[in-house]
Amino acid sequence: MNSQKVGILGGGQLGRMMVEAASRLNLQVVILDAPEDAPAKQIESTQAHIGGTFNDADKIRELASQVDVLTVEIEHVNADVLAELEQKGHKVHPSSQTIKTIQDKFVQKEHLVSHGVPVADFMETLTQDAVAEAGRKFGYPFMLKSKTMAYDGKGNFVVKTASDIEPAMAALSKTPLYAEKWAPFTKELAVMVVRRANGEVRSYPVVETIHKNSICHLVICPAQVDGTVLARAQQVAENAIKSFPGAGVFGVEMFVLADGSILLNEIAPRPHNSGHYTIEACETSQYENHMRAILDMPLGSTDMKVPASIMVNILGSSDSMEECYRPCKEALLVDGATIHLYGKKGCRAGRKMGHITVVGESMMQVQQRLKPILNAIEPGVDRPLSLRPMVGIIMGSDSDLPVMKVGAQILRDFGIPFELSIVSAHRTPLRMVEYAKSAAERGLKAIIAGAGGAAHLPGMVAAMTPLPVIGVPVKGSSLDGVDSLHSIVQMPRGVPVATVAINNSTNAALLAIRMLGAFIPGVLKQMDEYMVKMEGEVMRKVDKLEQVGWDNY
Amino acid sequence: MNSQKVGILGGGQLGRMMVEAASRLNLQVVILDAPEDAPAKQIESTQAHIGGTFNDADKIRELASQVDVLTVEIEHVNADVLAELEQKGHKVHPSSQTIKTIQDKFVQKEHLVSHGVPVADFMETLTQDAVAEAGRKFGYPFMLKSKTMAYDGKGNFVVKTASDIEPAMAALSKTPLYAEKWAPFTKELAVMVVRRANGEVRSYPVVETIHKNSICHLVICPAQVDGTVLARAQQVAENAIKSFPGAGVFGVEMFVLADGSILLNEIAPRPHNSGHYTIEACETSQYENHMRAILDMPLGSTDMKVPASIMVNILGSSDSMEECYRPCKEALLVDGATIHLYGKKGCRAGRKMGHITVVGESMMQVQQRLKPILNAIEPGVDRPLSLRPMVGIIMGSDSDLPVMKVGAQILRDFGIPFELSIVSAHRTPLRMVEYAKSAAERGLKAIIAGAGGAAHLPGMVAAMTPLPVIGVPVKGSSLDGVDSLHSIVQMPRGVPVATVAINNSTNAALLAIRMLGAFIPGVLKQMDEYMVKMEGEVMRKVDKLEQVGWDNY
Repeated sequence: MNSQKVGILGGGQLGRMMVEAASRLNLQVVILDAPEDAPAKQIESTQAHIGGTFNDADKIRELASQVDVLTVEIEHVNADVLAELEQKGHKVHPSSQTIKTIQDKFVQKEHLVSHGVPVADFMETLTQDAVAEAGRKFGYPFMLKSKTMAYDGKGNFVVKTASDIEPAMAALSKTPLYAEKWAPFTKELAVMVVRRANGEVRSYPVVETIHKNSICHLVICPAQVDGTVLARAQQVAENAIKSFPGAGVFGVEMFVLADGSILLNEIAPRPHNSGHYTIEACETSQYENHMRAILDMPLGSTDMKVPASIMVNILGSSDSMEECYRPCKEALLVDGATIHLYGKKGCRAGRKMGHITVVGESMMQVQQRLKPILNAIEPGVDRPLSLRPMVGIIMGSDSDLPVMKVGAQILRDFGIPFELSIVSAHRTPLRMVEYAKSAAERGLKAIIAGAGGAAHLPGMVAAMTPLPVIGVPVKGSSLDGVDSLHSIVQMPRGVPVATVAINNSTNAALLAIRMLGAFIPGVLKQMDEYMVKMEGEVMRKVDKLEQVGWDNY
Repeated sequence: MNSQKVGILGGGQLGRMMVEAASRLNLQVVILDAPEDAPAKQIESTQAHIGGTFNDADKIRELASQVDVLTVEIEHVNADVLAELEQKGHKVHPSSQTIKTIQDKFVQKEHLVSHGVPVADFMETLTQDAVAEAGRKFGYPFMLKSKTMAYDGKGNFVVKTASDIEPAMAALSKTPLYAEKWAPFTKELAVMVVRRANGEVRSYPVVETIHKNSICHLVICPAQVDGTVLARAQQVAENAIKSFPGAGVFGVEMFVLADGSILLNEIAPRPHNSGHYTIEACETSQYENHMRAILDMPLGSTDMKVPASIMVNILGSSDSMEECYRPCKEALLVDGATIHLYGKKGCRAGRKMGHITVVGESMMQVQQRLKPILNAIEPGVDRPLSLRPMVGIIMGSDSDLPVMKVGAQILRDFGIPFELSIVSAHRTPLRMVEYAKSAAERGLKAIIAGAGGAAHLPGMVAAMTPLPVIGVPVKGSSLDGVDSLHSIVQMPRGVPVATVAINNSTNAALLAIRMLGAFIPGVLKQMDEYMVKMEGEVMRKVDKLEQVGWDNY
């Protein structure tokens, strides 16, 4: 679809998945990498690829002579040659300047600070005295980091006390160092951002990353974090990438702190492990968008097309290929799991051999589906996710709790993640506004509001959210709850409240579950089973009545 | 993941997409096809492929000598050699017997009839007299068909009158013929079915196919047809495939008649054009499941992972590659569109050059997204789809229609497909049971039920469906509607009805839309806009009141 030929420095799994995307668009790609059978070369037989390393100046020049656009699948390339080629008029994406800035994490951080991007405090530490000074300035623990050639946790050292300084410097002796204040993060987030040469930027959903031994283990999308925090993270990531010239996909890793604020950790100027999930879960994969961006083609939608996904990396645990296939064989039995193996010939401990992406109708389902795969990787280890609530239960006063908790129990029984709080229309009106206005963005699908007497809460919340609001009239000391019922149900045209029977939070919860079930088949099935069970309970009473007679019942 | 090497007879687009799936599972595939640069060979450089046709006995034997399992991407292969190889102990999937039966459409039909599968009446017509006899037996029009070597409408002739018989026989002179009674179908459906060697069968969702010049043009998934009809079609397809020995994916094409009954049209013993959509829209693609099936690996889930998809074929319209890229370039601008180009070097009119699959959050959205792509293929031609209803509006009596039609108008304004009918709890109780029981399977997401007086309809329907039911109390001649309100809202624990204000079908419709919006972002956005518009209308009244004063208002 585009006559420009692309040359990729590096032919590993990232290059391979770029080639996969390119083939579908009839794009031509030439790979520069040492092995004859590099993963990316295996699935592109129409070109004469080049053998050599992505640091070899001559080989890079040879590649440039054969293609129209150069790109990278790894940032540790010879950026000076790329700069020289750019000078000569070759197209290089991302630009050599961007790659250079990112290659040195200290320079990267300085660049980000100068563009107003929030990062943890840091300082250059070229001497042991400077490291000790960092300890005084930042307190312990702090991070000592290699400026260059760092990846997958390599090149980082946690300095817990002053006595760690010497061993840390010994361990990181190969490159110059800098120190970073410890970021007391609650979760790690990541965003893939794609930037077209004309400056247009689109970002993928925010994911939650879980590392194991400093290597990416799980990528959860969407991150099970309050949607308002996610919107902030996405903005930080976009702002950061807008500051770098050139085109392509960038991986932006971030920390979220306890107060919901965001610190950018680091950037990769290429498709990234935390974006593998986009192949199955998004409308356009990061790989296709990378190709589109560097060829100045229109960018594709970065929206999710499935409700939930989790990616798990398949690392070699030894040199046994069979062992690395074990979780994959488990995944063959898992609905919604797609296995990606990279065609690497040799297996060794810690080598990225493949990944598995599990998608599903809800995060509850994806989490369940993932279990046997994780169990094959780490038998017996359970890492339960805290799921983002789908239903919000609110009530005007804690005196409504005895009525409302019956519904909460139903949601718990069905395994629906929910939140429960007090929001009073009359005593905390501003809290109510904030709750209602943010509900959809925070990820809620329905709100259950209980109120007695004048019972304004359900209707007022419904007036400020596009979500369905279910109202539970709570019986007060007078009027038998009819006051609340009429106040909740008789909403004016334009703003509906789904009203249930007086004090019947059971039905409110069941109604919320039916709403979810209309779009989540597994939940619909649960509701079907609930109804069958209910029928069975009555039928048992029928039998009992038959057996003991009405007068003894 | 499996040490068995696979050999594919044929290296076109179907073979290419099989290779794509195989690479991700570290499976080895060898292609037999004449061109050096056949589409499938282009993306698999680790094997020495074979040049030659899939009818060349020696070449097939050569392929067999190099691999563990043979399969096909086209049924018009030399099945005798495959039978000979099976005799010698080679694994062939699907079995040569299955391929032979399917190659001859007359034999295929006889096989299906003998296994109780519904097909249109047919008879052998080896002579002109026999064809005339078919005309007398079936009436005109009827179909005259080549028994063998037929595909994409080639080998079929519609005999409209007796005078067509001679030209029909002349046109189809190359192979023996049979005649088929005309099937007065309302829609064409298709199902991909995968069968593992051990006999396990899984079927994909039923799709609706729209042909242009007898070549597949659009594939709509899920078919916009009543879910109970779809369940029947799926059953017919599964039963048919259970009758064929061997493993692999099968494409089953069917007709649905006006009464909802199903006739099987024909079967392809391989991945099929009507299953391309599975790559983006299902949990496991037909290509991956074909590989799994023939290697006796566990089958993957055939469920959809997105709410809706439409696939459109990209055919060459001339020898201009640029012209065939035109709809693809349009698709680059369309969210949710994935372009598949097959790497074919030459373009010519009618040649399958690629396909585009559009996915989205709802069929409404996918239909909108598809428009610019279709317009690039056939400027000015609009083929509106009739969408399956997502909301059902029912009422106890036509006297409720004036109240309920206000809500219907809201749904229409929002572009939500819905159905509206009369279902009386007391006068048509069995119709009510059928309506409620089938609602979820038929594809509804919510039911709005209006009723007056005793007003049993909403609660009784809610008792027989797991879907959310919204109740509209309709005001009768006495008690001001409070009778209906209390009857609808005061449901017992276990069965909720989302009750809205008396006579307020507007709010019922808006509530249904909010329920859809919780899962369909585009609808949520519409609801947001509706609320802003409503606010604007009141603000204009504020301004007017300000301007003219309260006494002149």
